[in-house]
Amino acid sequence: MKHFATAMALTLALGVPAVAQEAAHKVVGVSIPAATHGWAGGMNYFAQATVERLEKVYPQLEFVLTTASDPSKQVNDIEDMVATRHIDALVVLPFESEPLTGPVQNAKASGAWITVVDRGLSVPGIEDLYVAGDNPGFGRESGEYMAQALPEGGKIVVLRGIPTTIDNERVEGFQKAIEGKNIEILGMEHGNWNRDDSFAVMQDYLSKYPQIDAVWASDDDMAVGVLAAIEAAGRKDIKFVLGGAGMKEMVKRVMDKDAMIPADVTYPPAMIATAIELTAVGLVSPAPVSGRFVIGSVLITPENAASYYFPDSPF
Amino acid sequence: MKHFATAMALTLALGVPAVAQEAAHKVVGVSIPAATHGWAGGMNYFAQATVERLEKVYPQLEFVLTTASDPSKQVNDIEDMVATRHIDALVVLPFESEPLTGPVQNAKASGAWITVVDRGLSVPGIEDLYVAGDNPGFGRESGEYMAQALPEGGKIVVLRGIPTTIDNERVEGFQKAIEGKNIEILGMEHGNWNRDDSFAVMQDYLSKYPQIDAVWASDDDMAVGVLAAIEAAGRKDIKFVLGGAGMKEMVKRVMDKDAMIPADVTYPPAMIATAIELTAVGLVSPAPVSGRFVIGSVLITPENAASYYFPDSPF
Repeated sequence: MKHFATAMALTLALGVPAVAQEAAHKVVGVSIPAATHGWAGGMNYFAQATVERLEKVYPQLEFVLTTASDPSKQVNDIEDMVATRHIDALVVLPFESEPLTGPVQNAKASGAWITVVDRGLSVPGIEDLYVAGDNPGFGRESGEYMAQALPEGGKIVVLRGIPTTIDNERVEGFQKAIEGKNIEILGMEHGNWNRDDSFAVMQDYLSKYPQIDAVWASDDDMAVGVLAAIEAAGRKDIKFVLGGAGMKEMVKRVMDKDAMIPADVTYPPAMIATAIELTAVGLVSPAPVSGRFVIGSVLITPENAASYYFPDSPF
Repeated sequence: MKHFATAMALTLALGVPAVAQEAAHKVVGVSIPAATHGWAGGMNYFAQATVERLEKVYPQLEFVLTTASDPSKQVNDIEDMVATRHIDALVVLPFESEPLTGPVQNAKASGAWITVVDRGLSVPGIEDLYVAGDNPGFGRESGEYMAQALPEGGKIVVLRGIPTTIDNERVEGFQKAIEGKNIEILGMEHGNWNRDDSFAVMQDYLSKYPQIDAVWASDDDMAVGVLAAIEAAGRKDIKFVLGGAGMKEMVKRVMDKDAMIPADVTYPPAMIATAIELTAVGLVSPAPVSGRFVIGSVLITPENAASYYFPDSPF
């Protein structure tokens, strides 16, 4: 594009390094937690796939992808990217906020563009771009589906995640969406986004409540535990279980029109792909990509499930 | 990428049209208001440049770009894109919310992805992706700069835009950022984002107030009017004028270290480029791009001005 040539002539005249040129080689660091569990496994898969895709699309970009199994390894990864790879941009999904804040601040001070994904840092305003999921929207989509799937109303049980702001926002969004829809929540306990905990919570629900119409498991891992408990108890009253996140086994069941898993709500690990794509767009085009991108949670139904099914992903 | 091939084999088995294949030809409609004034002129320039860029990067994508000088022309453009071009996605910056809502709803019903830019529609939830500027952030960045540029505090005058929610959010953000900074706002009148109105408002301020340290013009067009009034009056007390948006003449003055225009705050017409880029990413990759992207307002200083200077753009 012509305006780049002109802009760059000016840039060079001002003494800005030649690395700022359009077709100049730029290095993008991507630092993420290792694939310790399902969602992180999907996130690793999409990060790798996106790096491979973008290296073909934009040969002028080089990517350094590191995975860390603890915060101190991630700190080292980022310090190394700055010191020896001279990264022009960093895409980071922080293992924990506190220990990563300093190293990311240092990367910013070195001149690198900073994209933070999913979990914020302890100090606001460091990142140029923040890409995150939509927790109130996740709850709202789930509640709207529940209300629509139980048009006469009904009795449901809810499994909550680990007690966090994220979990509170999801549950509030859900409760608001089912207001006035004649849906009675019999019980609401923490399954902690864990299959075993959720199995135990669901066993308890099953022994307490003789009639349950549906379950909001609120997460696909918790849904796995819930389904196992229902099967073990041989209960036939429960019409369906609504999980969430977009685990491939659940998306497949939606696609196959499994009556117990009629839908799912996304909280996509592929948001790391969006973060890397946007960072690349910022480096190769004049499109502004600073700001805050909240990725919407989408209802997966048999009609659109194929678009959300990635059989090669571990999640 | 391998997973696409597998996903697509499944998609085809389910009878979804062949157009869903990765490398399949897809058509993206881009409908924007014509270049009736400065900001819209920049927006047209960046839309055109982005379409040209992406047609090279992604040969499987075809773009239909239309510009409309009134809402009814824009309605026709969109109806035509749906009926005769069978668009897979629509990127629209609505001329007005009310008349465009129905046609965009119809495009959505035809199965097209919907990206709405800058101005919302009258009915919520139609768009898959919303890309917008950050009005509170625009005000905050401007206020923080003002406080930093007047470390001892000072007397300023403010020009407001057309009375709208946008203008209120900007002014509130500004006022909050200068709280406790010893900055006295002598006057705050509406210049309506218009050069002539702002010339008149500034003339009035100049006759009323013998000592003014700085002006928050809050928009580059208004800054042009303000500067003309100051020059006509021969006043030397005013240290600087802070506009906003990123007009190229103003960015050039920042870059050239013009003392009267030491900085600018972006509200980039290039947000249309971001919207088109993200829509393309959604069509060619598995990255989720539904949601809400609020493009941050960035402070332009002599250090970074070259990155925001596009001499070929009309704005």
